[in-house]
Amino acid sequence: MSSASANEDCLGWAARDASGILSPYKFSRRHEIVGIVKEVGPNVHRFKVGDHVGVGTFVNSCRDCEYCTNALEVHCEKGTVRTFNSVDTDGTITKGGYSNHIVVQDRYCFAIPDNYPLASAAPLLCAGITVYTPMMRYKMNQPGKSLGVIGLGGLGHMAVKFGKAFGLNVTVFSTSISKREEALGLLGADKFVVSSEPEQLAALAKSLDFIIDTASGDHPFDPYMSLLKTAGVLVLVGYPSEVKFSPASLLRGMKTITGSATGGTKDTQEMINFCAAHKIYPEIEIVPIQYANEALQRLIKRDVKYRFVIDVENSLK
Amino acid sequence: MSSASANEDCLGWAARDASGILSPYKFSRRHEIVGIVKEVGPNVHRFKVGDHVGVGTFVNSCRDCEYCTNALEVHCEKGTVRTFNSVDTDGTITKGGYSNHIVVQDRYCFAIPDNYPLASAAPLLCAGITVYTPMMRYKMNQPGKSLGVIGLGGLGHMAVKFGKAFGLNVTVFSTSISKREEALGLLGADKFVVSSEPEQLAALAKSLDFIIDTASGDHPFDPYMSLLKTAGVLVLVGYPSEVKFSPASLLRGMKTITGSATGGTKDTQEMINFCAAHKIYPEIEIVPIQYANEALQRLIKRDVKYRFVIDVENSLK
Repeated sequence: MSSASANEDCLGWAARDASGILSPYKFSRRHEIVGIVKEVGPNVHRFKVGDHVGVGTFVNSCRDCEYCTNALEVHCEKGTVRTFNSVDTDGTITKGGYSNHIVVQDRYCFAIPDNYPLASAAPLLCAGITVYTPMMRYKMNQPGKSLGVIGLGGLGHMAVKFGKAFGLNVTVFSTSISKREEALGLLGADKFVVSSEPEQLAALAKSLDFIIDTASGDHPFDPYMSLLKTAGVLVLVGYPSEVKFSPASLLRGMKTITGSATGGTKDTQEMINFCAAHKIYPEIEIVPIQYANEALQRLIKRDVKYRFVIDVENSLK
Repeated sequence: MSSASANEDCLGWAARDASGILSPYKFSRRHEIVGIVKEVGPNVHRFKVGDHVGVGTFVNSCRDCEYCTNALEVHCEKGTVRTFNSVDTDGTITKGGYSNHIVVQDRYCFAIPDNYPLASAAPLLCAGITVYTPMMRYKMNQPGKSLGVIGLGGLGHMAVKFGKAFGLNVTVFSTSISKREEALGLLGADKFVVSSEPEQLAALAKSLDFIIDTASGDHPFDPYMSLLKTAGVLVLVGYPSEVKFSPASLLRGMKTITGSATGGTKDTQEMINFCAAHKIYPEIEIVPIQYANEALQRLIKRDVKYRFVIDVENSLK
């Protein structure tokens, strides 16, 4: 199964060898993987057989650099070993969620609380942490502040859920009016704006403290920057072909554009625990692995609310 | 005298009425103005006749909004009254440094220490504060960190001086090899890189904590972003026609682009005091007002090291 985008095609299990954990596959996305521990190595103390666990976008790093020692392994100076299609330290190619088990060092494995629906946890491991990391870094967890979310896909819908859990006033910007009802109803956003309507945007000038931009389609940036208050921050987590704006969009009001991609192990576990404590569950559609190609076609047509999760275990019985 | 750019054509004096200070012109740039107080209003307690003072880019604001009450008047919600060519609260048009005296509310007037060369203080009021504000905001005053400065004009040369005063390792990027000797010798930069040489840039990959970009000519951003370490920050203070880069430049390594323009009254006074304490003096060429047009022609040819300051007082004797 190939991918529509780095964030839209993930799958789930978790595991380890003599120095780690072994788990059968369970629910799976490419690098959003959850499962149940089947075996643990003698040096593993954080996990035991039967634990619900997850694996995210990387499965190894140098463990020695400034970033690794600060649990920011995603920024490892020597580069991480990515969970999917990356060369592991033993020379093998990592297979991510598209396999029936995984063996992983416990450092790169996360505990999923027993009361958290296991399949729902899969999208937390990439979509969830990708929006949670910059939200915490830019202190968006301040009730009463205002957040704009551009794009309502896998990442965007999690940004809305986190935003509401943080007590923010959340405005969703989407090209598709069809998402209005879900944004306001299911996800609990406070406002919905069709991003192609300049008047709707203009009405929100200088009203937002933060914007999380999850749109990977090309779009102008100046109109959104004008919605930020003084010292406002736009966090890019989507992947358009380019980012282009007027310098005035930054200089007037000392505004900021920053980017983020997933997060470190400490933040990932913290985010999972936060989701469990606040009953934040990604919206998912569980599909059998035989449905993968059809799911991909639907992804291309944006026909998913909001993440497919492949039920690897039951698919391969 | 018209201007080559917002930051390259400023002039200076300072003053006030019955509720403020009156000072004759002294040394002048458009909104970088210094002089000696000639008269003060009865409610003025911060200044007395004979004090050396300065006025920057704005001379009034609402004094009531969130930003004014935090001494960030430059971001006043109702907009500032700019020092030059702006409508003042009494309906008159402000004339900035191109006049023989100024009357200004003491809030928007800054003390220049007696031992600070008065003419040298003029460029602090725009060029100085424009680079100092983001340097403090992003905590660049950490000895041992590394700073890149793009462009070596009025703003750039101040960024180098502040950088060295902060104990930073400073690299200057310039299109002109002719600036090498001055950058390394006069200004004390640690490295000089000709920005059109890809190999020189590549050698500095992931080596800089901060970049201050003062270049107003169009230039690519991706090559500079690649020089930032993880979590590095590029501060734009120049004004190219657009800012354009790949999303990867932000996403990989959670990098940031931000902008800044001048600063508030508290920071401005702090910056002046810092310059006096650390003997930081802008490089200036003092000219009579009759030389203004020739100075402008030289500005266009970039033939200035690094600020012209008009000696208004002596020019008009």
